[in-house]
Amino acid sequence: MRDFLPAEKARRERVLAVIRERYRAHGFDEIETPVMEEYARLHAGIGGDNEKLAYTVLKRGLDADAIRAAADDPAALTDLGLRYDLTVPLARFYASHRAELPGVFRAIQIAPVWRAERPQKGRYRQFVQCDIDIIGDATVRAEAELVVASLDALDALGLRDAVVRVNDRRALDWMLGSFGFAPDERAGVLITIDKLDKIGASGVVAELRERGATPTAVDAYERFLGRDVVAGTGFGAEFGADAIRAALPDGAPDELVGHLAGLGATVAQARSGAAVPLVFDPFLVRGMGYYTGTIFELGHPAAGSSLGGGGRYDGMIGRFLGQDVPAVGFSLGFERIVDLLDETADAAADAIVLVHDADVPTGELLAHKARLVAGGARVRIEQRPRNLTGLLDRAASDGYTRFGVVSAGTIELELKPLG
Amino acid sequence: MRDFLPAEKARRERVLAVIRERYRAHGFDEIETPVMEEYARLHAGIGGDNEKLAYTVLKRGLDADAIRAAADDPAALTDLGLRYDLTVPLARFYASHRAELPGVFRAIQIAPVWRAERPQKGRYRQFVQCDIDIIGDATVRAEAELVVASLDALDALGLRDAVVRVNDRRALDWMLGSFGFAPDERAGVLITIDKLDKIGASGVVAELRERGATPTAVDAYERFLGRDVVAGTGFGAEFGADAIRAALPDGAPDELVGHLAGLGATVAQARSGAAVPLVFDPFLVRGMGYYTGTIFELGHPAAGSSLGGGGRYDGMIGRFLGQDVPAVGFSLGFERIVDLLDETADAAADAIVLVHDADVPTGELLAHKARLVAGGARVRIEQRPRNLTGLLDRAASDGYTRFGVVSAGTIELELKPLG
Repeated sequence: MRDFLPAEKARRERVLAVIRERYRAHGFDEIETPVMEEYARLHAGIGGDNEKLAYTVLKRGLDADAIRAAADDPAALTDLGLRYDLTVPLARFYASHRAELPGVFRAIQIAPVWRAERPQKGRYRQFVQCDIDIIGDATVRAEAELVVASLDALDALGLRDAVVRVNDRRALDWMLGSFGFAPDERAGVLITIDKLDKIGASGVVAELRERGATPTAVDAYERFLGRDVVAGTGFGAEFGADAIRAALPDGAPDELVGHLAGLGATVAQARSGAAVPLVFDPFLVRGMGYYTGTIFELGHPAAGSSLGGGGRYDGMIGRFLGQDVPAVGFSLGFERIVDLLDETADAAADAIVLVHDADVPTGELLAHKARLVAGGARVRIEQRPRNLTGLLDRAASDGYTRFGVVSAGTIELELKPLG
Repeated sequence: MRDFLPAEKARRERVLAVIRERYRAHGFDEIETPVMEEYARLHAGIGGDNEKLAYTVLKRGLDADAIRAAADDPAALTDLGLRYDLTVPLARFYASHRAELPGVFRAIQIAPVWRAERPQKGRYRQFVQCDIDIIGDATVRAEAELVVASLDALDALGLRDAVVRVNDRRALDWMLGSFGFAPDERAGVLITIDKLDKIGASGVVAELRERGATPTAVDAYERFLGRDVVAGTGFGAEFGADAIRAALPDGAPDELVGHLAGLGATVAQARSGAAVPLVFDPFLVRGMGYYTGTIFELGHPAAGSSLGGGGRYDGMIGRFLGQDVPAVGFSLGFERIVDLLDETADAAADAIVLVHDADVPTGELLAHKARLVAGGARVRIEQRPRNLTGLLDRAASDGYTRFGVVSAGTIELELKPLG
């Protein structure tokens, strides 16, 4: 968990403001939920491995007997926990407030989440997620709106080389079936295939054999991996039906190919003229168990790992609502994005440092300040130190653009450019 | 703890943006600290009664033996807690990062805090505090900058009738001494005097007698309460030395009177022309034990209770740093302020609802949307329902200003005003 000093905090807020503004322009509305959710809801199996990383909050008013009794049932010590993602809270929120929301609800959530991770580079125990979700639209329009809005936000941040890898859980299931994996072994096979980026084709094949997957299916999968067409990094930005079909085993159902190609064509039409950085990746899995259809992963050449991703999770809202509602989401990995961006200068109009001698009456000094603030400037007061140059250099690096010196009796303040 | 739906969330964010912008204009810089702090730090006695309301976080990896052992030492169950205010984290932050901060550090913190309060109207278990603090300036300039910036923020929100009651802990101490309360009973007397608003003069006097306070001192206090000059609501907006002296028992030290009058004069000079809504209140106490000098409380005729407050706490940073550093803070009660404000309309330029027939190809629809978004509008897509009027009414109440209908083959989109 980190403290953010002024320069970094301002940078983060500027990046968040761009993302928020772009998502709002695309018709998404921001909501907010409490950081704590009920323990049982956070541990209902939806959060996958993240459930194990949840921070839990001690129940109030436990006496010695209650604590002793909890030794055999630690869950009795707690009733609340800190959220580890924004998807579980969104599903709970939607189930609670559905009647007050539009039929197709487009949500923005920009908020911290917590995971008790082991400390390691680039992983934080408190970090901000930026999620957009569309609930109530089962068509590919929802996927396309998410992708178009997210690409627009990245464009606005200057991250124009981002790439969205796309797959579909139904395509994965069909593909595994076409190799000969039985339905009941496919979930396990997916977990192994998901490691392709980390352990490579030979590692995946070896692990599939180790876990005792159907040998003929593993052979088929290995042959498929060896095809020329898979050797590249993607399948061409055109994201057309032919490219998608060529990237899949023979005989892919028209419906699946049509769904994926339709997404590419729709995004292209919505971004008329701009780049359409979609890539079909038949091996993309995404870890979470709740995905039911299209899945996305956002990458960038300058980033070693994913910058975000998402997918369709049509079954999850139903677990809270008792009635299935289609849903699809896209999450930006804010912390990694902010690390990628160059120091962006604060575009704030006019920022002035007022340096004053020690003997200037406070009222006079604050009156000078007030006039400049009323004129639209941002103003910081500093008492004149021995080393004025050092102070001015520091102010310039803090984003201040002009300075003025106030002595006792100063009436007309002269402002000079800084830096 | 509450969910915030889109309209309320947007309203809150607009109010926060105004406060943040005004505070930045006055030379304050925003920082952020993690929501969790070490348990020991949250329970070091600085937080007063709020310490009892802190949510604590369960230690990870406790086994049955550790839990059983904790029955007699519940603190062993926890190592972290959720912050109950922003002052304890600020003191910790400053002690950690002093070398990287300006000599006079003006901090903004706008962030949630948590208290396990009993549910009651207007009290929330998660709520946002907006604090500004100045660390490293022992002069009255710091108090004046806080008050001027906060009044400017309230003005910008349209809360022009706010009043800041001012007192000083040193004045309180001198006053209690002048009545004849002994030094070692004054802390207890302050707790009773602090209830003046709630239980009235006769209630306070009765409680002082009950708690066995020096009888002659209670008599003196009772006579003082009965004076005409205290019967009013304040001591006049002029906040001058004469008014302050008249409001105190006879013989008030010049230094105390001068300090308070100087604050009033400085604020008046900095707000040249604008109202100076300062009132000297010799009975203002403020609950927290850490205040050492000037104290403030913010009120408004439309609010039943305080909208915020603050004061000087020169001793606290030293507890973390081992070296005394002067500090003074002002906290806006954001939740109460946002409840007071009328629904402010979203000033967003152009917000358009695109209503489409079901048979419009998705790519066409999204291309229309993209053109409008690229032109600077905020755009929401809605499929045409049976009741178009109901949809348009709802969109108008969500802040949308225009609508257009897209049918298959629409090339020129006609936009009409909403509402």
